[in-house]
Amino acid sequence: MTRSPAEVTRGQAVAVVGAGLVGGGWAIVFARGGLSVRLFDAQPGAAASALRLIKEQLGAMHAAGLIDDPTGVLRRIQFAETLAEAVDGTAYVQESAFERTDVKRALMEDLDRVCALQTVIGSSTSGIPASQFVSGLAIAPRVLIAHPVNPPHLVPVVELVASPETAPETIEFTRDLMESLGQTAVYVRKEIEGFVLNRLQGVLLREAWALVEDGIATCEDIDKTIRDGLGWRWSFMGPFETIDLNAPGGIRDYAVRLGPLYHSIARSRDQSRPWSPELMDEVERQRRDLLPVEKLAERRAWRDRVLMGMAASRKKEQV
Amino acid sequence: MTRSPAEVTRGQAVAVVGAGLVGGGWAIVFARGGLSVRLFDAQPGAAASALRLIKEQLGAMHAAGLIDDPTGVLRRIQFAETLAEAVDGTAYVQESAFERTDVKRALMEDLDRVCALQTVIGSSTSGIPASQFVSGLAIAPRVLIAHPVNPPHLVPVVELVASPETAPETIEFTRDLMESLGQTAVYVRKEIEGFVLNRLQGVLLREAWALVEDGIATCEDIDKTIRDGLGWRWSFMGPFETIDLNAPGGIRDYAVRLGPLYHSIARSRDQSRPWSPELMDEVERQRRDLLPVEKLAERRAWRDRVLMGMAASRKKEQV
Repeated sequence: MTRSPAEVTRGQAVAVVGAGLVGGGWAIVFARGGLSVRLFDAQPGAAASALRLIKEQLGAMHAAGLIDDPTGVLRRIQFAETLAEAVDGTAYVQESAFERTDVKRALMEDLDRVCALQTVIGSSTSGIPASQFVSGLAIAPRVLIAHPVNPPHLVPVVELVASPETAPETIEFTRDLMESLGQTAVYVRKEIEGFVLNRLQGVLLREAWALVEDGIATCEDIDKTIRDGLGWRWSFMGPFETIDLNAPGGIRDYAVRLGPLYHSIARSRDQSRPWSPELMDEVERQRRDLLPVEKLAERRAWRDRVLMGMAASRKKEQV
Repeated sequence: MTRSPAEVTRGQAVAVVGAGLVGGGWAIVFARGGLSVRLFDAQPGAAASALRLIKEQLGAMHAAGLIDDPTGVLRRIQFAETLAEAVDGTAYVQESAFERTDVKRALMEDLDRVCALQTVIGSSTSGIPASQFVSGLAIAPRVLIAHPVNPPHLVPVVELVASPETAPETIEFTRDLMESLGQTAVYVRKEIEGFVLNRLQGVLLREAWALVEDGIATCEDIDKTIRDGLGWRWSFMGPFETIDLNAPGGIRDYAVRLGPLYHSIARSRDQSRPWSPELMDEVERQRRDLLPVEKLAERRAWRDRVLMGMAASRKKEQV
């Protein structure tokens, strides 16, 4: 973490392709780190609405003490008219296009034509392995997944997932770049469905939904169990460190004591059924009782304010 | 939450049986709420070491701005010489004895002899259903599980788990008492292995350990994924609200989009194997590289300071 983002890219700009919520967040991450950013979106009008959103978010970040100079950050973000113009002379391209394999493949074919030989390309996909859209292209060794949590300018984690064709230098460069930007790079060593983040989220959600289906607890009581219980320690230590500190002798001691219980719980749960339409209705009903659909947007704004507060306090403490 | 703890107990004291780490934390919770507490432990010397620990913790809480008057809180905690003396005239007994069914059963038989007819008894067990140690006793309708996260005076959640014999008034009384004390009561409607909290922790840990076993990610990278990613939102929203805000149309919309992925992830994982000794060695090795065993105590103190900071900021924000 000694090098600055500009040192990692050797003074070159970066490009963000796809100017939706995720792409806009990425533009902020790069520009906040001092890099020149070229933002491109093929859809008409996308640039204008991205600009509006980015301005709003920079204002909120400034108010929360997360950035000092919102105007300076904004000035580093330029909109490009074409893909070729966007990627010209860039060290890195963050692909944040629509989440569909055929869309990603078409875009990668375009990037294969217009990118310089050294440009590294990270895909924001939350679940499509790179080998499904990049195989056989000349750029394949320079492509990997760089999957952020939304919004990337507030939550630091980025999953780096290599395809079998990704070159080691590509992983190394992207890790250096992300860490120089203050993101937390997590290295996923093999392509696996859901990567790490969504696998962990998925297993917890499967158990949570099953507990509602079986009438054991309500959605709200399960949320309370996490947000006023397990979630506190997980938000600054993670699950391994949590249990390492929870037995006198450390994690092995803990595993010997509690491993059999967790194994028994895992085996007791039948995973053959999908979430039924009736269960979805029930969960939707419980959530809408707590938060009417017309209040979703307001609550999302609240969530982002809380996340900004957390980011600001992390920044202060350098946890 | 309009009534004070003393109003819920009608001015009566409470007892804590078992003066270890959990029992001592409970004594702080009750005394902080203004209740007179009688602490009892059959083991010689337990009272003295509990008193030392409680004093230390009250000092730290005072320094963190969590309590105003540590001396006043301490003054409300009295040590009892016998079980009968401890429970005499109390509205509520928090059982925090050793985590073994035979120990709990013997203690419940003793409590059956000495408790007044109206006394409610909550057990701190993290996993033994009440029916396994209270069946057939006259007190059975007044016994339930009140399982805290450690330490209970810092992390608010308490799981209330009824046995088939628990009376509805017992659940209602304990919920009122816990909420009047500022704890977060979660109602688990049926006895189930691991209750809710450890089932949720267990499924996440099973996936995390399997990812390490399969060479997908290191313990540290998995911890990063949670602590710099998923854990932030879970620490103030919980998993249901998180996904409710993560799709334009709310949770049903989210479930339709991502349910099939999570189902596929769940089915892809074989749960037949326990954690092998080799896997335990590997995880232990990775953790000890990050934190030598002689630093565990120091890191636990750091964890408690961070938790105190979180509790203080929750108290301020009234989240």
